[in-house]
Amino acid sequence: MCATALSAAPQSEPASRLMPMPATVEPGSGQLLIDRSFSISVTGYHDASLDRAIQRFLTQLTRETGIPIWSKSGDSNPSLLIRADQAREIPQRLGEDESYALSITPSRAELTAPNPLGILHGLETFLQLVEPCAGGFIVPAVRIQDQPRFAWRGLLIDVSRHFIPPDVIKRNLDAMAAAKMNVLHWHLTDDEGFRVESRRFPQLHGQGSEGQFYTQPEIREIVSYAYDRGIRIVPEFDIPGHSRSWFLGHPELASGLGPYSLDGNASPAMDPTLESTYRFLDKFLVEMAGLFPDAYFHIGGDEVDGKQWDANPKIQAFLRAHGMKNNQDLQAWFNQRLARILAKRHKVMIGWDEILHPDLPKTSVIQSWRGQQSLAVAAKQGYTGLLSHGYYLDLMWSASRHYAVDPMADAASVLTPDEKIRILGGESCMWAEWITPENIDARIWPRNAAIAERLWSPQTVTDLDSMYSRLRAFSLRLEWLDLTHRSARSRMLRRMVGSDDVAALSVLADVVEPVKDYTRWKGVAQLDFHAPLNRLVDAVYPESELARRFSSTVQAYLQGGHADKAAEAQIRAQLLLWRDNDVQLRPLLVQRSLLQELAPISANLSTLGASGLKALVYLDRSEPSPEPWKADRLAEVEQAKTPRASLLLVVVAPIERLIQATSH
Amino acid sequence: MCATALSAAPQSEPASRLMPMPATVEPGSGQLLIDRSFSISVTGYHDASLDRAIQRFLTQLTRETGIPIWSKSGDSNPSLLIRADQAREIPQRLGEDESYALSITPSRAELTAPNPLGILHGLETFLQLVEPCAGGFIVPAVRIQDQPRFAWRGLLIDVSRHFIPPDVIKRNLDAMAAAKMNVLHWHLTDDEGFRVESRRFPQLHGQGSEGQFYTQPEIREIVSYAYDRGIRIVPEFDIPGHSRSWFLGHPELASGLGPYSLDGNASPAMDPTLESTYRFLDKFLVEMAGLFPDAYFHIGGDEVDGKQWDANPKIQAFLRAHGMKNNQDLQAWFNQRLARILAKRHKVMIGWDEILHPDLPKTSVIQSWRGQQSLAVAAKQGYTGLLSHGYYLDLMWSASRHYAVDPMADAASVLTPDEKIRILGGESCMWAEWITPENIDARIWPRNAAIAERLWSPQTVTDLDSMYSRLRAFSLRLEWLDLTHRSARSRMLRRMVGSDDVAALSVLADVVEPVKDYTRWKGVAQLDFHAPLNRLVDAVYPESELARRFSSTVQAYLQGGHADKAAEAQIRAQLLLWRDNDVQLRPLLVQRSLLQELAPISANLSTLGASGLKALVYLDRSEPSPEPWKADRLAEVEQAKTPRASLLLVVVAPIERLIQATSH
Repeated sequence: MCATALSAAPQSEPASRLMPMPATVEPGSGQLLIDRSFSISVTGYHDASLDRAIQRFLTQLTRETGIPIWSKSGDSNPSLLIRADQAREIPQRLGEDESYALSITPSRAELTAPNPLGILHGLETFLQLVEPCAGGFIVPAVRIQDQPRFAWRGLLIDVSRHFIPPDVIKRNLDAMAAAKMNVLHWHLTDDEGFRVESRRFPQLHGQGSEGQFYTQPEIREIVSYAYDRGIRIVPEFDIPGHSRSWFLGHPELASGLGPYSLDGNASPAMDPTLESTYRFLDKFLVEMAGLFPDAYFHIGGDEVDGKQWDANPKIQAFLRAHGMKNNQDLQAWFNQRLARILAKRHKVMIGWDEILHPDLPKTSVIQSWRGQQSLAVAAKQGYTGLLSHGYYLDLMWSASRHYAVDPMADAASVLTPDEKIRILGGESCMWAEWITPENIDARIWPRNAAIAERLWSPQTVTDLDSMYSRLRAFSLRLEWLDLTHRSARSRMLRRMVGSDDVAALSVLADVVEPVKDYTRWKGVAQLDFHAPLNRLVDAVYPESELARRFSSTVQAYLQGGHADKAAEAQIRAQLLLWRDNDVQLRPLLVQRSLLQELAPISANLSTLGASGLKALVYLDRSEPSPEPWKADRLAEVEQAKTPRASLLLVVVAPIERLIQATSH
Repeated sequence: MCATALSAAPQSEPASRLMPMPATVEPGSGQLLIDRSFSISVTGYHDASLDRAIQRFLTQLTRETGIPIWSKSGDSNPSLLIRADQAREIPQRLGEDESYALSITPSRAELTAPNPLGILHGLETFLQLVEPCAGGFIVPAVRIQDQPRFAWRGLLIDVSRHFIPPDVIKRNLDAMAAAKMNVLHWHLTDDEGFRVESRRFPQLHGQGSEGQFYTQPEIREIVSYAYDRGIRIVPEFDIPGHSRSWFLGHPELASGLGPYSLDGNASPAMDPTLESTYRFLDKFLVEMAGLFPDAYFHIGGDEVDGKQWDANPKIQAFLRAHGMKNNQDLQAWFNQRLARILAKRHKVMIGWDEILHPDLPKTSVIQSWRGQQSLAVAAKQGYTGLLSHGYYLDLMWSASRHYAVDPMADAASVLTPDEKIRILGGESCMWAEWITPENIDARIWPRNAAIAERLWSPQTVTDLDSMYSRLRAFSLRLEWLDLTHRSARSRMLRRMVGSDDVAALSVLADVVEPVKDYTRWKGVAQLDFHAPLNRLVDAVYPESELARRFSSTVQAYLQGGHADKAAEAQIRAQLLLWRDNDVQLRPLLVQRSLLQELAPISANLSTLGASGLKALVYLDRSEPSPEPWKADRLAEVEQAKTPRASLLLVVVAPIERLIQATSH
């Protein structure tokens, strides 16, 4: 690609910059130049939404190349010819054809699709293909035929635990579109906050949001913003549990007596035995059904805490009167009533695993937070389903770990073809206990793009090196969409330090990750959702790219029998930096209470750096280390594995390997 | 300040973070803690605009501290008590009282002002006082009594040569408010573009803007956005010259025959002899007077190219018939007519130096791009005036050079007190031939804050070290307002390189500055306003902070007789990095045509780095360098002073000093 006499470095294959990887990519020969004469012509079907998409594409192309490109549609010899055969649906429908074909030759590009959805995806692919070249910018010649593996590729954003303002939602929709995700699952209510304006019941957001909610015009605008980007919005109102925030304004819905507050741990449930509850929900859901045009409507249904039901004699009497064996039966009764209310409005009900019950209408969709097993069980019973287990972004897993999770794996892999069709796709989940508008981008991206690829690309696309290399390119491109997933960290570090001299803190920040799974919750009796999320754990990336690279350099160096002197030099430079960093950082750590908690982990990094350097000396001399030295070092390694300040030092493992290797 | 047993580093004086420096600052003792219990109470006058300002203040405080602070007005024991005595005017009026008093004790802060304008300024001062502390964040105890030196403190933004979208204007208004500037002079039309929607004459923006203009709702929104921030908006319609863009839609206004195009160098003028011109302008200016509520209205009037007037026999006949001696008389006639049109709408006319003429109404304001001399001449004649000479941001001067320019200096310093009162203040000017929405923030900020300080603070505030130190703090704070003055450079470097591996290019970018004054125009026959501004010169900062610091380190080292080993080590490390950078950078330079032009300057940096290192060796040994060596090195230095790729290598001078010092 991008070949000229001057082009010294080998250029990349077109596919090496694409994420998610298309279904088929055939490299061609030569390239199409992108310069200020770039023009677009649209034939076939088009509408205002497609026109806006093309305008966004041109704006983006201008931003990324710095070349002011003016829309010249109707050009008789366009650089890019766009043709959609027919209209897409309004509202967007699950299972619409999203395929597209993109063909680029040195003289012209052609993007065709059955409808504008494919055009949207193809334009994103085109942007990813743009690369700098000796003479400016080009796209390589290529033929791409692409379509998604799954029809439902979602991201859940919880806006209840911490409110996420409209502009932050919008930029995440831009990023989702870049990753070809097509569902925003908007977790709008939970115990800690009710985030939608209800005009029918203004006490809901009035009492339940501390003033932090989306107005109805804001919601309409976001729904239309998402539509323009090929993204459906599925609202979730989590009931009958996870509903404390409803009860501040409407305690009559609750099974207990209250009073209720947004703070606290209690998770009271609605009273499913009262007809008044259904009359209320009927009116409320009608209002919301009008606001959210999507055919699917999520009613939550997870983790219903049965204590209030158990403690309420009227509810117990109701159970007996209706021959119900347990609270599950009661929730099933509730869900059937909800399903009927929603059906009147032509909405398909969707809920978490727990709604699965023999009485559940077969049209319902099960979203599994528990795993492929429960997904398979549902599919066998005739329900459609979505996988979210393994895609929880708040657990701080690596991209590779999420990437390895496949909706069709494990229990799902043995389903019959008819049952497999019922697995619609999956959704990553950004639960918001520990996130704020400031760090949410960095919690979602770039890792979420690995999940997006799992849901879009062929099942056989699994190479980790390729994924990480493309993820890095994807992450850089997100910055042109003004995502803050990279910039927020340095702002937060500067705040911690109180100046722009963040070099030493950055060295530490580069090699730590937040603790995984729910470890951060340990010892936290009650979460305080008004507390500042201002610590290093809130600022650092969930996955350290530096640690990943260091680890693979160490591995290559050890496997090569310590012969690779360039690798050794890299390792040594890194270890020196770590060894000497604590001295740089310590004066800061004692000054600021926000940073004091970092003293032990900074000391550990320094110790490990020194040990690693000594190990290199032994390896370099091919001289075994003395056993006591090694034992002492490994003891240090062990203690360095303990999380400090909710952080893991993630270069422990490769340094341990260096130390271990000294005895060979 | 911020004293605790743990606080090791000396804390700063409160004034050390303030920009512009207040009129008086008396440090107190102790500090007021900022935590989540922070509360505000407003007594006295308040209105919706003030409420919004307080909300913005809280949002900003939350962003900068990471502490979620919720507005709790009406608190009986507030952390910050705000009291404005009475309303401000609508629209904002030149000369309104902008003073405020801010008193902070360990128990409470009080901000009082005659009207909300002072409150706006005081809130900005408060934000600048916030500093990290061992236990979190504090503001130091202090008493500040503050008011501006000049009533007119403006920034001109030219949106004609390159269109600047509304969101970019808005964030620059935020930054102006932070710097206590109070006038946005919006240069809306010029030869290259007519940027306002006119409903009366839609061909003006229709033919004159290539679709890049502000709609009237956008203008109204920006005017109200500015009002909320204590900023007046003065529109400029530059006539009768600089008006080519008008003639695409309305050639009948021109003195020549046309045809007209937005491209090209010609600067045709309006025909001031036709009554139809005034009928048109009357209708147009009435429409614009309704859109822009400010009492002042700028008609440009600069650099009228008389060629068309000279060549038009009818115009020449008109001159003779009216006893006019020259084109200046004709322009004065035009201006008198304009002044009458504007007076009907209660607008005060303002124009550039050239409008000064015995026939000009005394109410007019003269804006001087030529210097204090013409400002003084105007003041003596009874006109009020503004200084812009010395404040042209497009000339790429250092902050210190702008800072040294005082409206009351030179010819203005000998005016009588009555005449001095006529000097209203000044305006920095961001002319847009070489700027885009991408780099405009970095072209304006942070340097513009030095000019803002010159116009706000007492004339005696002139210390450069203090200015630079506070400017750096100010610049960092601007990032919390989402200004891109720092982040744009790295995005642009990544684009040039095509990856995020920009280390070597950044080393070069750190030590170059764009050529000064109008040097970049040399050899450019015709500017192409559609060309990409994609080169290193477009990305680098107008002033290199690294070079400034390096220079002062070298100076201190040499003055100290080479004894300061720490300084020497710093200098050596820097020189080593420079010497070795060319090898790192060269592979990239040959690959990309955008970067090829940098090869000579990168080579020069390497050469100078090596020479500087050798000089250090001589200095270290206190051994004079051999004369031929020194002569050769100085010859290299001389050639390195030549601009390359429109860039100056700004570490030449300190390295030259090192080489020169080797012969002492």
